[in-house]
Amino acid sequence: MESSSSTMDRVNFRTQILTRHLQNHHIPPTDLIHTAPCVNYSPPELSEPLANFDTKSLRKLLDGKSIDVIDHMFNLMIQSNLFCPRERGGKVFVSPDFNQSMEQQREMTMKRIDYLREQGAFDGWFSRKGDDGELWRFALAETVSVFDHSLGIKLGVHFFLWGGAIRFMGTKRHHDKWFKPTETFEVRGIETVTRYDARTEEFIISTPCESAQKYWIGGAANHATHTVVFSQLEINGVNEGVHAFIAQIRDADGNICPNVRIADCGHKIGLNGVDNGRIWFDNLRIPRENLLNSVADVSPDGQYLTAIKDPDQRFAAFLAPLTSGRVTIAASSMNTAKVGLAIAIRYSLSRRAFSIRPNEPEVLLLDYPSHQRRLLPLLAKTYALSFASNYLKMIYVKRTPASIKTVHVVSSALKATENHVGHLKSEYDVQLTFEGDNNVLMQQISKALLAEFLAAKKRNKPVRGLGLEHLNKPAPIIPSQLTSSTLRTTQFQTDIFCLRERDLLHRFVKEVSEHQALGESKEHIFTVTYQLAEDLGRAFSDRLILQTFLDVEATVPAGSLKDVLGLMRSMYTTILIEEDASFLRYGYLSTDNAAVVRKEVMKLCSELRPYALSLVSSLGIPDAFLAPIAFNWVDANSWSSV
Amino acid sequence: MESSSSTMDRVNFRTQILTRHLQNHHIPPTDLIHTAPCVNYSPPELSEPLANFDTKSLRKLLDGKSIDVIDHMFNLMIQSNLFCPRERGGKVFVSPDFNQSMEQQREMTMKRIDYLREQGAFDGWFSRKGDDGELWRFALAETVSVFDHSLGIKLGVHFFLWGGAIRFMGTKRHHDKWFKPTETFEVRGIETVTRYDARTEEFIISTPCESAQKYWIGGAANHATHTVVFSQLEINGVNEGVHAFIAQIRDADGNICPNVRIADCGHKIGLNGVDNGRIWFDNLRIPRENLLNSVADVSPDGQYLTAIKDPDQRFAAFLAPLTSGRVTIAASSMNTAKVGLAIAIRYSLSRRAFSIRPNEPEVLLLDYPSHQRRLLPLLAKTYALSFASNYLKMIYVKRTPASIKTVHVVSSALKATENHVGHLKSEYDVQLTFEGDNNVLMQQISKALLAEFLAAKKRNKPVRGLGLEHLNKPAPIIPSQLTSSTLRTTQFQTDIFCLRERDLLHRFVKEVSEHQALGESKEHIFTVTYQLAEDLGRAFSDRLILQTFLDVEATVPAGSLKDVLGLMRSMYTTILIEEDASFLRYGYLSTDNAAVVRKEVMKLCSELRPYALSLVSSLGIPDAFLAPIAFNWVDANSWSSV
Repeated sequence: MESSSSTMDRVNFRTQILTRHLQNHHIPPTDLIHTAPCVNYSPPELSEPLANFDTKSLRKLLDGKSIDVIDHMFNLMIQSNLFCPRERGGKVFVSPDFNQSMEQQREMTMKRIDYLREQGAFDGWFSRKGDDGELWRFALAETVSVFDHSLGIKLGVHFFLWGGAIRFMGTKRHHDKWFKPTETFEVRGIETVTRYDARTEEFIISTPCESAQKYWIGGAANHATHTVVFSQLEINGVNEGVHAFIAQIRDADGNICPNVRIADCGHKIGLNGVDNGRIWFDNLRIPRENLLNSVADVSPDGQYLTAIKDPDQRFAAFLAPLTSGRVTIAASSMNTAKVGLAIAIRYSLSRRAFSIRPNEPEVLLLDYPSHQRRLLPLLAKTYALSFASNYLKMIYVKRTPASIKTVHVVSSALKATENHVGHLKSEYDVQLTFEGDNNVLMQQISKALLAEFLAAKKRNKPVRGLGLEHLNKPAPIIPSQLTSSTLRTTQFQTDIFCLRERDLLHRFVKEVSEHQALGESKEHIFTVTYQLAEDLGRAFSDRLILQTFLDVEATVPAGSLKDVLGLMRSMYTTILIEEDASFLRYGYLSTDNAAVVRKEVMKLCSELRPYALSLVSSLGIPDAFLAPIAFNWVDANSWSSV
Repeated sequence: MESSSSTMDRVNFRTQILTRHLQNHHIPPTDLIHTAPCVNYSPPELSEPLANFDTKSLRKLLDGKSIDVIDHMFNLMIQSNLFCPRERGGKVFVSPDFNQSMEQQREMTMKRIDYLREQGAFDGWFSRKGDDGELWRFALAETVSVFDHSLGIKLGVHFFLWGGAIRFMGTKRHHDKWFKPTETFEVRGIETVTRYDARTEEFIISTPCESAQKYWIGGAANHATHTVVFSQLEINGVNEGVHAFIAQIRDADGNICPNVRIADCGHKIGLNGVDNGRIWFDNLRIPRENLLNSVADVSPDGQYLTAIKDPDQRFAAFLAPLTSGRVTIAASSMNTAKVGLAIAIRYSLSRRAFSIRPNEPEVLLLDYPSHQRRLLPLLAKTYALSFASNYLKMIYVKRTPASIKTVHVVSSALKATENHVGHLKSEYDVQLTFEGDNNVLMQQISKALLAEFLAAKKRNKPVRGLGLEHLNKPAPIIPSQLTSSTLRTTQFQTDIFCLRERDLLHRFVKEVSEHQALGESKEHIFTVTYQLAEDLGRAFSDRLILQTFLDVEATVPAGSLKDVLGLMRSMYTTILIEEDASFLRYGYLSTDNAAVVRKEVMKLCSELRPYALSLVSSLGIPDAFLAPIAFNWVDANSWSSV
């Protein structure tokens, strides 16, 4: 081995490469303006092995019946100059101009919505019924987010929050009045919370103090004309709990209404296409009919009418339908991951850097094992999480009063988990906290699991639902000496994930009951048991995702596609076992086995390497939504394309 | 325990809180415009326990002799309207206007530099000698970055890259000519790399091909007038390796010079105050004297003159002085962490959310154990890494030819490590990759350690330098049953960090030699051993940081300040042992002991909790550089301050 400084070695080696690079193009000095392309771009399609599976079938596993609406939305965006198409390196790409000011980004976002509306993209938003209608709405909302997170959020606030409140909390009189103008954006909606007073026959909405102002309301600063206000409803001095009301905040010309004050939240670190604002109400009067009366109403003579006696239960009934927010966050975080990985992997298949030995050709980035390790596990996670988010959408659209808790727990699990792939980039960063801070969501999952477990125990019945049936069986046994082939079996993968969830749940139960024995309140107990709660929440999420992956695999006939899916599933489970310290911490993995797992990660990387391009193509993101660096970046960077 | 849905419980509980909150302010409905402050801001200074140590002394441990220049720079910035002072919640804050376009941000950055120059801030940049001069330059550059990373980088490119190249690679003729106009910004410098041809008596700089264009050159797009070009030097057909030349690229009026083409890199995800550009040279002629001739020169009649025969060694000699980049990145990442933590901790000491039990007062965020866990370990890391970056600065300013390798390895370790605190925020994100990708830096450290170890073995001598002397002693023994008090001893903390470094080094040596036995090239071997190399690089960095922390503690007399430092050091080591799976993976920690470590993290959080405000105050960031949310956010958000 070398005894001299490796730093110097590295510098020297680099110099040799540079020198050789230049000597290969020994152009006579008088002819130096000649711009010979030193580095040629070669499309990876020419050099990569052909996929031995059908990429269309793989994409179908990801996008299912929504493929047509997804591709239709992509095409609408590519075809309009509003989406800033620009030609680079012989291809056309679309992306927002982030150099625009906040004001310009907001205006462009609104114009893009107007264009999509004119193209009929939103026709039938409220009339499409059943599972197909729900899936169509999700697909539409997720696809616009591929272009720009602002566009997705602005549409989401309008259709899912405002539109969802009208749909689920209102009744026929509201549907008849508001669905059409909402679909056509004649009214532009937002959602907020405020306080109500009903001393007269009208509703009067007020903001009693500074800390009751409505903050970060999407759409409030510029474009919204109407809002759904959540407020305490007081009638004859009795507080009936939180209800929802429609209030107009701007007239058709965009002027702020009397008795309403609005301030702009201003520039943000990202999402500047969304005009967040703050609202104060000063005794704003609204007609009695503007109460969204799905669970309670007020008669003309001021009687409060409801079938649900308990005000807290009424509030809970209101909020339940609004979990769709977490569903869309989970799903669109996958699109962010797909775009990022498609760009990074395509580039790493066309960019070479340094030779392993002097005078050998330079090496493709993706042929470096350390680079494989950084990208290929993320690709496996993206597939696994996409399958899981499809499952979440399915249980959401088929929800029943009995399953709403499952939807809540699963959406919390996936919303928190999936954002780990989305990273902390500025446009996307808010996903970590809105619709529930991810750390808190993990604790919520654990509380729900604890409640399920204890309830079953109390009833002396097996645990049911949330995929927890494995708790009724004996604990799985992990082989004392793992091998590469064991690591790739469905049996082992399921066993170790179930073992972890089971053991952490038992530990959590024990820890909570120890605190209870000391007479502590349950609220206090949950604040001090966050360590186990977060581990358990993650264990639940990972096991759930593995299960949905296996469900997808089961639909694929034996053959090369099933094989590559198996490889991806093994990568997904193996990388989690390597990365999450809980497997070692709680003893599910011995240190010997941990070493086997680490080796397997490298091995899986090298085996997935040949499929990288096909797996990325199967993601179904049109080239135009990627970036020049994913294609001919030599041309795209040349002087002639400046 | 509860058997009903915890979701519903949570919703109900929240409703109760909201209801109580509103009922506490039961204002008559006719008087609803009255804006009673429901939530009062109470400065944490009034409620938090007084520090039982001297915060000035603690700050002195962080900023040492540089306190005066740091505070002077802060004051210069606070006093000028160019730094956008705005009053919020009764205090004045300065921060860039990120809603400005790229063009506006660039112009503002340049204006801020002009203002600081007019105020004499840079006077003596080149003339201040010795250790004090170097530390003064570092302090100055780091402090402007507290305001804005663009300002720091733009100054760094000018003074450290351009100015550093003139200083270290040039000789008296260049110093006499360029120091003064650089200090006064009459010339505005950048650094790049290109190719040289010397067929005539002049130097002719050319860009032979598209891929040889100079990319991402800070300052090139708008403001730079001169650049240092790195190029292969060819004389009489012989390639003499890479040399550095001064080239003018714009005239005094800002027009691009003939034979130079420049393109703008455009808008970036952050750092838009820095005007990055791309440069092509078309047979640009420059005077012979513009060669920076510290190690080699060319005579008027075209003879190449040098004392260093080997061209690669000449190149390495050129580059060695430029490691200051990593030093400043390591140090200014600490400032980013300080600002972020000061804001987050101050806010968490003034913001309450939910009661533990109904009808109890709401709880301060920092009194939630899970919130302590998220902030207080970062505070301990920030202190530890600040001490370590001061150490790095010290060995940099006292560098000798013999110690330059140590500086390189230590700066790689800290540059890569410290950015973990800085997170992936858009303005700061580039720090992860520029001046060396952090993953690659970890591998470089391991290669250097391997070389040291093998060289000592070959010479049959003890290992010396880089703090590796512990390798000559027997392996430390970790107690089989850890306790809270053991975990807090210097002995244990040092032992487990040394054990990890030692064992990983031995494993790395073994893995590399196994590959060698198979006849693989060393370049290939380093590409496949990245897993151990990255673990080892981190082990080295962590042990180094612990050592500098202990060095600082040793200077403090017994008393409350030393006690709180000890608590912070224990938090720093304990959190690393909890977070880095390598302690379990390689068996330095049993699963039983891992459980003790986890408990200790919670315990340390609660013990550090009372010092949070004092520790944050001791960071020495002026209030104006924090944010409204760190102070009276109720006032700052009120309608009257819109």
